Amino acid sequence: MTGPLTRKPTLAVVGATGAVGAVMLQILSQRADVWGEIRLLASPRSAGRKLAVRGAEVEVTALTEDAFDGVDVAMFDVPDEVAAEWAPIAVARGAVVVDNSAAFRLDPEVPLVVPEVNPHAARIRPRGIIANPNCTTLTMIVALGALHAEFGLRELVVSSYQAVSGAGRAGVDTLRAQLSLVADTELGTSPGDVRRAVGENTGPFPEPVALNVVPWAGSLREDGWSSEEMKVRDESRKILGLPKLPVAVTCVRVPVVTTHSLTVHARFQGEVTVDGAREILATAPGVVLYDDPAAGEFPTPADVVGTDPTWVGRVRRALDDPTALELFVCGDNLRKGAALNTAQIAELVVAERSGH
Amino acid sequence: MTGPLTRKPTLAVVGATGAVGAVMLQILSQRADVWGEIRLLASPRSAGRKLAVRGAEVEVTALTEDAFDGVDVAMFDVPDEVAAEWAPIAVARGAVVVDNSAAFRLDPEVPLVVPEVNPHAARIRPRGIIANPNCTTLTMIVALGALHAEFGLRELVVSSYQAVSGAGRAGVDTLRAQLSLVADTELGTSPGDVRRAVGENTGPFPEPVALNVVPWAGSLREDGWSSEEMKVRDESRKILGLPKLPVAVTCVRVPVVTTHSLTVHARFQGEVTVDGAREILATAPGVVLYDDPAAGEFPTPADVVGTDPTWVGRVRRALDDPTALELFVCGDNLRKGAALNTAQIAELVVAERSGH
Repeated sequence: MTGPLTRKPTLAVVGATGAVGAVMLQILSQRADVWGEIRLLASPRSAGRKLAVRGAEVEVTALTEDAFDGVDVAMFDVPDEVAAEWAPIAVARGAVVVDNSAAFRLDPEVPLVVPEVNPHAARIRPRGIIANPNCTTLTMIVALGALHAEFGLRELVVSSYQAVSGAGRAGVDTLRAQLSLVADTELGTSPGDVRRAVGENTGPFPEPVALNVVPWAGSLREDGWSSEEMKVRDESRKILGLPKLPVAVTCVRVPVVTTHSLTVHARFQGEVTVDGAREILATAPGVVLYDDPAAGEFPTPADVVGTDPTWVGRVRRALDDPTALELFVCGDNLRKGAALNTAQIAELVVAERSGH
Repeated sequence: MTGPLTRKPTLAVVGATGAVGAVMLQILSQRADVWGEIRLLASPRSAGRKLAVRGAEVEVTALTEDAFDGVDVAMFDVPDEVAAEWAPIAVARGAVVVDNSAAFRLDPEVPLVVPEVNPHAARIRPRGIIANPNCTTLTMIVALGALHAEFGLRELVVSSYQAVSGAGRAGVDTLRAQLSLVADTELGTSPGDVRRAVGENTGPFPEPVALNVVPWAGSLREDGWSSEEMKVRDESRKILGLPKLPVAVTCVRVPVVTTHSLTVHARFQGEVTVDGAREILATAPGVVLYDDPAAGEFPTPADVVGTDPTWVGRVRRALDDPTALELFVCGDNLRKGAALNTAQIAELVVAERSGH
């Protein structure tokens, strides 16, 4: 996309058959119809499948260099190494790439964009690539961006309750298979009984996830940190423009299908009030404040799944620190955590070319 | 118990038929046999049931004043209001009470005891009552007590992943019933689908707990805090002897049967090292260090359930604060979190009377 368009732009969805791809097709059918042609690309073994988008069947074609000819924007949801190889090819063929892998997120020449927080960053993209943040970062960053704009963020301590679909279709299949094995049993009461029932069927997880929580996501980084924890720290700093923000994270997988939850202890530059925080959260775009424990109101994954916003509840000021807030946030990891934010970024690119 | 005993002491277990009571009977059968007679007391509707303890059947008798005659130590695991009424009665009849309700925990004339952390506090009990901490506090306090003794604790930020048995048998029954309804389905992917499948069957929880996490435990306190969160803060301060320790807690229920997990961000007086922390945790009584992510080793509830110690993994120094450690801890909430710690306190009382 090198100038104003006289036609509706062509979109390529790369990785259309994955868990995020499926949600992307739903989202493209629901949002304002800014796209002309939509091409669905995937690995050769998925080529020929037909998927519904905007009410029509579209045939999936294999990912090739030529497939990007005439494409204005290409959304990628593929493994890191596939994105690293193919995103520059798409750019060379004239597309702006919006990539949901980790391949480019920390590249200083690639903006990392959350439209509610740093939309203007999308305009400066020396490599023709815009990166979409990790789903765990996206669960909290819209709400934190709004609070930061008012109060000035000084420190974060975060714990995650991550859904299995963060590990893709294999994660969901694994949980469902394990639940079939443990439901209608007395398991979960003696050491290793769940592990024995589940056997080798742990799928992408290092331990059983049914009737369990697993304090690990991603691969091992230095000093005992997981890649997922490092992503939350590094990406939050980049999106918020706070390269030295102290961020401590522990990522834990829980037996939830879709929607990540996070507890957040956020310390700010000065004193904060709960009323002030609630007012910001209640009016921030993309955020729903759902916080009335007396009425039984706080977000849970079972209610948030399938919705677009970040839901925030349990807003409290730390009892021993007037500069800190406690939050419980939920967000659909396949929608805002992945497909929706990618679609929003792609729409920013279209709007920019339209002169908006 | 007012002097040295020439016979083995008599123990009363009040609330013998509950979830914690059942585990208490197992524990009494497993530990060194310091007790003479063991009486099992419960509400009149449970009287006449026979339960196994130390290999013999013992008939449950109704809770009456006379039932405490001749009792040296009475362990209570009953609702707060029952404990508030009956513990003083047991004391008046000559028993030392070890109470696992919240009724007396913050009473300045009642010590709150964790034998690995503050055993000597058990000796000063003006009311004849010793309180056992809440299960969530107990999940972390043995490990934190050991670290505090070396490094000097300055702040805690804690998030919980609490098992349903913390809400008693009703909690376990509710999760199992809900799992039967959601296993072998495609639930968990659209807003409210789990809630509709579960219907009114949420038992002691405000929301469905299968395929979900629920950021609420206990009752509503001031400023949006839950009673469970306040317990963790207030009890940790009392046990550690740090009445002004800043403690921020968010308590979340997860679909695990038994064993609470916590993420802990602990800040200390000065710089800490991971090696130093690991050495302390590896040698602390009641703690198992299980922390080798490269080998897939970190504690999870499925492996910890049914065991006595506090398991600690994911030990990391905060990347941006050399005075802070991150931990993931697991402990069986019915054993160390309730029955075991109660039994250990009762044994302290016996040892004291024996002149140990």
